[in-house]
Amino acid sequence: MEEFELIRKFFESSTLQRDDVVLGIGDDCALLSPPPAKQLAISTDTLVSGVHFPETTSAYNIGYKSLAVNLSDLAAMGAEPAWVSLAMTLPKSNSAWIEQFMQGFNALACLYPLSLIGGDTTSGALSVTVSIIGFVDASTALKRSNARPGDAIFVTGNIGDARLGLESYLNQLQMGQSQMDYFRNSLDRPEPQIQAGLILSRYKHVAAIDLSDGLLADLQHICDASGVGATLRLQNLPLSNELRDFYTDAINWPLLLNAGDDYQLCFTCSLDDSLSIKKEFKHNNIKMTQIGEITSATSISCYQHDIEINTEHFSGYTHFSDEK
Amino acid sequence: MEEFELIRKFFESSTLQRDDVVLGIGDDCALLSPPPAKQLAISTDTLVSGVHFPETTSAYNIGYKSLAVNLSDLAAMGAEPAWVSLAMTLPKSNSAWIEQFMQGFNALACLYPLSLIGGDTTSGALSVTVSIIGFVDASTALKRSNARPGDAIFVTGNIGDARLGLESYLNQLQMGQSQMDYFRNSLDRPEPQIQAGLILSRYKHVAAIDLSDGLLADLQHICDASGVGATLRLQNLPLSNELRDFYTDAINWPLLLNAGDDYQLCFTCSLDDSLSIKKEFKHNNIKMTQIGEITSATSISCYQHDIEINTEHFSGYTHFSDEK
Repeated sequence: MEEFELIRKFFESSTLQRDDVVLGIGDDCALLSPPPAKQLAISTDTLVSGVHFPETTSAYNIGYKSLAVNLSDLAAMGAEPAWVSLAMTLPKSNSAWIEQFMQGFNALACLYPLSLIGGDTTSGALSVTVSIIGFVDASTALKRSNARPGDAIFVTGNIGDARLGLESYLNQLQMGQSQMDYFRNSLDRPEPQIQAGLILSRYKHVAAIDLSDGLLADLQHICDASGVGATLRLQNLPLSNELRDFYTDAINWPLLLNAGDDYQLCFTCSLDDSLSIKKEFKHNNIKMTQIGEITSATSISCYQHDIEINTEHFSGYTHFSDEK
Repeated sequence: MEEFELIRKFFESSTLQRDDVVLGIGDDCALLSPPPAKQLAISTDTLVSGVHFPETTSAYNIGYKSLAVNLSDLAAMGAEPAWVSLAMTLPKSNSAWIEQFMQGFNALACLYPLSLIGGDTTSGALSVTVSIIGFVDASTALKRSNARPGDAIFVTGNIGDARLGLESYLNQLQMGQSQMDYFRNSLDRPEPQIQAGLILSRYKHVAAIDLSDGLLADLQHICDASGVGATLRLQNLPLSNELRDFYTDAINWPLLLNAGDDYQLCFTCSLDDSLSIKKEFKHNNIKMTQIGEITSATSISCYQHDIEINTEHFSGYTHFSDEK
């Protein structure tokens, strides 16, 4: 397919060229010079049409989101983005579609010193696989296994908006156009928390994960990797005014606790560190909210004010359609 | 999807763990320690069912080939394989299929010190995207731009067998079962020429490419990157006895010159270097055949004995089905 030439052209017209890309697209492999004394953080995600995004999603938003979810993995490791490859499978040759896709992809790429180092375009059902590589200091990667009893648990931004965007695709919801636009924008264009990750990576013993599968499931990953438990306080969860307006009667906690696709960070740190992190976050206009504590228990306990909530019957999040 | 857990299990049971994988599958990113003073060679390829392989191809052979074509890109750069990620999209959850796929993938992976560092499994039409990373010395990567007028042009192995395998899927051919098995095996299980690439990487000014699109198209890539031309001598092309037996009347040169999927290396070097390369290749049981010379012309001239062949009407190779 000659589409890759188009992709390269669109990308190079709007993004930086990095000095550490010795040989870019056009040979059998790209050749890269990794920085000395850094580790590489690598993540790969595939987005499939009708599974990870509704089939009606615009090319621009698919391009944006396919990069956003990968950047979000780097953010959750505290890594600095560097190189990206893009493998795209398309039903048919369509340069207008690719141009819109790349506009969305580049709208995010141009915020970082990212070079496109390769990829592939092939014919078939629509899907996009992005691999991203970043740099991280060996001692300060935000591993899921870093949580310790007594640490506080925080999230960046708000929780649940993306899920209401998804609900608006799946069900008839009682909401106005501007509300729907707000929630769908949260679903289609999540903001990867790279800056938050880089700040957190300057502190030791910070565990982090990005919220892709829902708060309960993702916090459980931290607990499993660290061999700890957690107490979660629902009344402290940061919710947007738009979400509170939508839930005029009662908040649907089972839905929100399994609400994926927010791509905010959930992280744990000591209370001491949290004070200076909060200052740095404030300086960078990043919201952080304490939602609970890490415990030495073997599971997550969930409280609404002082009443414990049984979350055993809450089901997991599986994006747009059920993948199981 | 929980299939990725299956993939990890199958992979780890039959392959080495590398010390430079600081953090493997299970966090937001893998963490890797690249070796000092080496460059990274990276390649990504997607194989789509019905495009890059016939839909009847076995899971084992799809697994084998999806790794082989990526290893072949490293071979063409003279790189040493190290890390691989595997993103698989499957129509439905099927652990038996995945097990056979991984058996084919691992049959090749276990020949090299390769670690699986991550990936993804998703629901959708069958396709496989592999990203591979290897190491190469900065000064000796086998860049396509290294060819110089006067260099000799070589290929490893034989040319065209994989194309007859493909023809046997596309058309009714007059051939026996054992002949068909031989050709289809060449198509389904190409041998990436990693060892040849590593030997070549010890010589300066070697250009190389792997034969995925056909000899004419791939040699043209070397000529374009190096700003040179070439003379090609058809009577010198290495053909298997099986292929010569099949073409009892006349060899179909247009077909063979555009025969992709062989994944042999085409490389150029000085005649001096070719003598010691030949010794090393012989010691490693690798066949190499001189098929022409690099010239200062602006195009490729093709000769059969002393008669020039017009190749302008020869069409390019597009794998199983036309991707354009």
